[in-house]
Amino acid sequence: MTPEQHLAEVLASYDDSPNDRLAEITRSLVRHLHSFVTEVGLTREEWFRGIEELKRAGQLCTDERQEFVLLSDTLGVSMLVEMINHGDAGGTEPTVFGPFHLEGAPRKEMGESIIVDVMDTDQNLVVTGSVLDLDGNPIEGAELDVWETASNGFYDVQDENQSEMNMRGIFTTGADGRYEIHAVRPIDYTIPDDGPGGDLLFNNGRHNWRPAHFHFVVSAPGYRSVITHLFDSESNYIDSDAVFGVRDSLVVDMASGTCDFDFVLAPEAAAQP
Amino acid sequence: MTPEQHLAEVLASYDDSPNDRLAEITRSLVRHLHSFVTEVGLTREEWFRGIEELKRAGQLCTDERQEFVLLSDTLGVSMLVEMINHGDAGGTEPTVFGPFHLEGAPRKEMGESIIVDVMDTDQNLVVTGSVLDLDGNPIEGAELDVWETASNGFYDVQDENQSEMNMRGIFTTGADGRYEIHAVRPIDYTIPDDGPGGDLLFNNGRHNWRPAHFHFVVSAPGYRSVITHLFDSESNYIDSDAVFGVRDSLVVDMASGTCDFDFVLAPEAAAQP
Repeated sequence: MTPEQHLAEVLASYDDSPNDRLAEITRSLVRHLHSFVTEVGLTREEWFRGIEELKRAGQLCTDERQEFVLLSDTLGVSMLVEMINHGDAGGTEPTVFGPFHLEGAPRKEMGESIIVDVMDTDQNLVVTGSVLDLDGNPIEGAELDVWETASNGFYDVQDENQSEMNMRGIFTTGADGRYEIHAVRPIDYTIPDDGPGGDLLFNNGRHNWRPAHFHFVVSAPGYRSVITHLFDSESNYIDSDAVFGVRDSLVVDMASGTCDFDFVLAPEAAAQP
Repeated sequence: MTPEQHLAEVLASYDDSPNDRLAEITRSLVRHLHSFVTEVGLTREEWFRGIEELKRAGQLCTDERQEFVLLSDTLGVSMLVEMINHGDAGGTEPTVFGPFHLEGAPRKEMGESIIVDVMDTDQNLVVTGSVLDLDGNPIEGAELDVWETASNGFYDVQDENQSEMNMRGIFTTGADGRYEIHAVRPIDYTIPDDGPGGDLLFNNGRHNWRPAHFHFVVSAPGYRSVITHLFDSESNYIDSDAVFGVRDSLVVDMASGTCDFDFVLAPEAAAQP
């Protein structure tokens, strides 16, 4: 039996699946896994090493840590999923969501600070701009859900010395579509390196740094939400983000203590695939 | 940025890898993962479900259970790895190794039984044959490492009521290349179904049965080892093995209480890729 005949037999086993979408996904996964194994001529030892690394990744996962998200991020898969799901409806470019968003961040008045715990290393930054539609008109009632690390490079959920919901907030635009957020200048930080995700980076000569950034989810009724970042143009890692999230259009100058960026939302209708 | 440009950026991050083989494997994995995601238009929700299933698989793993092997088996990947590694040197066809082999099985005299624990349901079977080279000459000093489930469908390692090394043995051929093993007729059995591997089978309308079989690893100095099975031609699942291991050349008639099968080993030199 040839590898091609074997593949045909495996694919045929999904012919009677009662779940069309699952069968479609499984068949495509089977084709690509088989093609990968054949292309590299995977040895038994390499196959088993991969199997054991997958086990190790799973066993490292906790409520706060998801090693498979890390692997997906560092192989560029998460960014690709975001690109495909966002589509090309126009507006602000999307980037990765990341694992550090929290539901239920505090709602803030426009111009309020997201700093709960002041740190010695804080470099204050005021982020301003507008939320606009594709024609440049301001959008009223748009929500900006923003989060970033504290000045020590850790998110609140990673750092027991930080208050809950430090460096998080949800802001809602008025009729002028403007927003103003008082925060700290983000800093470069590393993603976890003590598991299979870190090993795969380091053994391939890659680093585990992400360039300094804010996370944003910007949404408004009738518009397509965008999951995105604002990146600090002076970051040392702006050209080598470990998770491939940087887009030129999202890089801004934060050195002066203020920065200005307009988010542009496409209409909901354009969002449908 | 298009998905193609994104892929190029991810692939380029492995250009300076100090580990050529790892970089080759990683690049191929990246290409196929990205192609899979794009081909099926994977949604964010589907991506996250996959991520969570991988976590669940990892957390189910123990010293006795490897859910990723099960997934690899049921997607036909394990069989493909075995086919590629065995190559087309000739001789007996290979099939999957499976997770139930133990090192250090007891060495047996030719004609000895591998039954340690006699069961009410035992249907005795004598397996005989020769180990031959590609020209049909007997191979002296060939080792046959054989294992099977007891008549209750469980391997010793799965069943606390069985003695260690029940239904296992290593037999060595003499100058005539002949072997004779006293055993029980194997029965159909199910692979574990209480994890992501089972869910992926059942949600796609597949079953989790393996057709009745013996496991064999046959090896001899100067010859390429073969990892294989002998299947019972009367099994209900001979045409739908959950792990795609059946090969016509490995199916034998076990109904009479005896069966005969010649193993054929290719020379070591032909084994090199």
